[in-house]
This record gives sequence, C-alpha cells and structure tokens, in this order.
Amino acid sequence: MRIARFSIDGNVAFGAVEGDAAPGDGSELVLDIIKGIPFADFELSGTKVPLSKVRLLPPVLPNKVVAVGRNYAEHAAELGNEVPEAPITFFKPSTSVVGPGDPITYPSFSQDLHHEAELAVVIGRMCREVPRERVKDVILGYTCANDVTARDVQQREKQWARAKGFDSACPLGPWIETGLDPAAIAAGLAVQCTVNGEQRQLGSTSDMVRSVEDLVVHISEAMTLLPGDVILTGTPAGVGPLNVGDEVAVTIEGIGTLTNKVIKRG
Amino acid sequence: MRIARFSIDGNVAFGAVEGDAAPGDGSELVLDIIKGIPFADFELSGTKVPLSKVRLLPPVLPNKVVAVGRNYAEHAAELGNEVPEAPITFFKPSTSVVGPGDPITYPSFSQDLHHEAELAVVIGRMCREVPRERVKDVILGYTCANDVTARDVQQREKQWARAKGFDSACPLGPWIETGLDPAAIAAGLAVQCTVNGEQRQLGSTSDMVRSVEDLVVHISEAMTLLPGDVILTGTPAGVGPLNVGDEVAVTIEGIGTLTNKVIKRG
Repeated sequence: MRIARFSIDGNVAFGAVEGDAAPGDGSELVLDIIKGIPFADFELSGTKVPLSKVRLLPPVLPNKVVAVGRNYAEHAAELGNEVPEAPITFFKPSTSVVGPGDPITYPSFSQDLHHEAELAVVIGRMCREVPRERVKDVILGYTCANDVTARDVQQREKQWARAKGFDSACPLGPWIETGLDPAAIAAGLAVQCTVNGEQRQLGSTSDMVRSVEDLVVHISEAMTLLPGDVILTGTPAGVGPLNVGDEVAVTIEGIGTLTNKVIKRG
Repeated sequence: MRIARFSIDGNVAFGAVEGDAAPGDGSELVLDIIKGIPFADFELSGTKVPLSKVRLLPPVLPNKVVAVGRNYAEHAAELGNEVPEAPITFFKPSTSVVGPGDPITYPSFSQDLHHEAELAVVIGRMCREVPRERVKDVILGYTCANDVTARDVQQREKQWARAKGFDSACPLGPWIETGLDPAAIAAGLAVQCTVNGEQRQLGSTSDMVRSVEDLVVHISEAMTLLPGDVILTGTPAGVGPLNVGDEVAVTIEGIGTLTNKVIKRG
C-alpha cells in the first residue's frame, strides 16, 4: 500500500494511493482517505479524492531524522573519504522536512548546495534496542529522500547541523510504500537522481555498505525511535551541485518520484 | 521568574517557583500553577503546591536541541582541539532529554561517559534569521544542561548522533529562569559541575568564545527555531568520567542545580 499525507480544503489527512503510480504521471491516481493514522490499526474510509485535487505533504512529520554518511563505497570515494569502520550518524531536524513539490530554499550561507538521493525508512512504532529479526516489525514503510547538503559548509563546520539541517534540507515523499520486501532492497532497487531531467545519480540499494537492518539495530542501540521517525540510508555516487531554478527529482524503484525546485530565499 | 514543569497526581503543568531557591535546598519552595503555557501570555492561578509534593519534569520538551562544541577555549585545549573558526553545531534529539532527578543511563556501547555542564538557552517563540538586537526577544529564559557524552564513541564515529544523542544524554533543569540579564551572562556566571559532591568543572560564561547572541544569530541563520527549542552553549574545562552510581550536579549561578544519577541499563 502507498500512504500519502495531504491537505484538501484546509484539512490534513492520510490516504491510500490507488491506481497506476508510474513515476511522473499521477494523473489517474486516487486517494482513499484513511480513518485514523497509519501508525495504528486503521481502515480506509472509502471516500476517494483525485490526487490532482490535493496538495501532497511530507508523508510523515518526523520527530527526528537520523541519517547515515558514506553508506555507498563509490560515494565515499568520490568525496575523497573511506568507508568508515563505524557508521557515521547525524540528525536532520523536523524543521528541515518539506514535502513533494515544496521548494528547496538555497541557504544564504552556502555557495555549493548538493543533492543526495536516498532511500528513507519510516519507523512505524516506538522502539529501542531492536533485535535484527524484529526490524521488519518496527518499519511502516519506505519513501524517497533528498539529503540536501551545503557541501562547503559541511567541510568548514566539522559537525553538520547547519550544512544538512537548514530549513528545506530534507525533502521527503511522495508517499510511504508499505509493501516493499526487505529482500528486494537487499537484492537491489535503483536509486536515481535527476536535475532538470538529466541523470546525475544512479545507484542500487544492493551497494549499501550497511543494510536497513544493520542501521536500525545500530541506531536503536543508542536511542528510542518514535512512530514517524525517519532513517536515511546514505546516497550513491554522483552527488553534485544544485542551482536556483533547478528541478531535482529522486526516484526509487518500487516507490515513486520526489520532485522539488530550488528557489532563492526571498 | 523561575518556571518549572512538573507532574502531580498524573497531571502535567507549569508553575512559577516561589521562595528561596538556594541550590540543593528546595524545602521551602512553592509552585504557583500557571494557567496556560509559558510560550504565550499567561497568568498565575494562585493555586500553590509545595515543590516537595511534585515531580519536576524537564522544564521544556524541545523539538530540537542545538548544541555547540568547543565554545570555551580551555575545554577545547583539554581535548587537544583548537577553537574552531566557525562554531561547531550538532543536534541532540528530543528522545535524549530527561529532567532533574531522572537517571542518566550508561550506554551499552560506551566505556567512557563524560559530563559536560552547560548553560542552556530556552527559545520562547518561533523565529528565523534573528537579528542580533532581537535575540533577547526570542529567548524565554535559561536553564542548566548536562551535555552527557560517550567520549570514546564521539572519537570513533566522527558525527556525534550516537555519542551525544542517546537516551538520557540531555538532562535539563531544574527550571527556566526568565529574569537573567544578558549583560550578567556576558559579565560572567559561574558554571559548575560536581560529581558525588566533588568539584570537576568550574568556569564562567564570560569565557564563552561565542556569546548567546552570536549563537542564536548563527543557528537561526540556517534553521527555524521553535518555542521550547534549546540551545546548549558549550562546556568549560574539566570534563571527565561518569561511572554507574555517580551523582552529577550542574549548578549555574542565578539559575539553580540540576542533579542526576548515573545508572546501569537494566
């Protein structure tokens, strides 16, 4: 099932996406409005609205986003880094999250903004010290993320709160796919990033140094994960600059496409 | 005014602390329960409860805690670091926050837990790109913080999400002092940390490399701050180990004392 969060006539709701979800073509999609929230048992209401009539929102409002650095060997190498012995983990705050179609605002303090296409894991239930065999039980589903990074600030400031935590640095969407098989992720789903339609990144989740299971175990060893929290699983090679006016799209096989436009801070 | 957050008979409320607030002696303190929340105009209800009858909670539930590394030159030097050209900023998540009297749970993945006594700034209103002269308007008040750090993990993992973001890594309290004069902070308030009554850290806010104003300007240049968000302003020299069974107390002149005990994860 694909679960979207959206606003219509000033109300916010979750809905199950029905119809053909070919990336880039949402013309025939319909949302069946969910009674309740997707973090507990829920029912579909049967009330349907065309996707074209709503504004999609970030599919979750995470309390925290925990992201992982250098989880694809080729990407680590392209920035002159080695794959670290321990995973590198950092936070993106809730205030950095935007949804599909929302603008990415070029930060005033950077001259080198980069895209980073990533598979995002959406946590479905409160958990801590999750054993490997229970990881699947705490995951609600998966979505696309762009770990937008002020590369110059990242290199200058050592810890990445400003470089990766500024407002709009964490586009998420377009929806949560709950039906992805962890085996399919391990076998390899294509993670693609295009800028103005031109391919910049194309990787496979099979090249992740640490698997989704590894990351949930590692992170939840230290901290409680809450429903709606998001884990970003790292970006494949091909990161590069974003300029004002660019349209950046992250497509993950089996999920969909997250598109955002880069704007100047007004 | 000193604003505490507390629970009594299963209800959570804010209250204004009245009476003599000598550190370590709360015997005669009384809470005047606040109608509403302290992030908007509020009134005191006149209903009073003795502090000894309530359980103090973290004085705020921050959406995010933004912390600053190496903001006291002597502390940077004691860990072999230089004062950075740009402030080092990192996040501690909401799940790391605990209140006065709550346990600090020794993480399973560290053998070198350290205390770091810090002045904490509590943001009172939503803000972004705060001009220096308006910083005072966005601050609700100040409290004590312990930026508890798994020093070995910090050195191993490069980014500090696990080292400084584990559950209970961010004790805050005992209350928010709203009456502190920024001039008094600049002139110097004593920041002290004791472990089992023995002094480990003693610094002065006058030695901060970047002032509270500097930090709010710098952080809010990148990200929206929300009511209840907290900024930690760095720790003075003298950081050192915490062991299971230790009682660690952070005292800041003009605010009060935050005490927590270190326990083994059960």
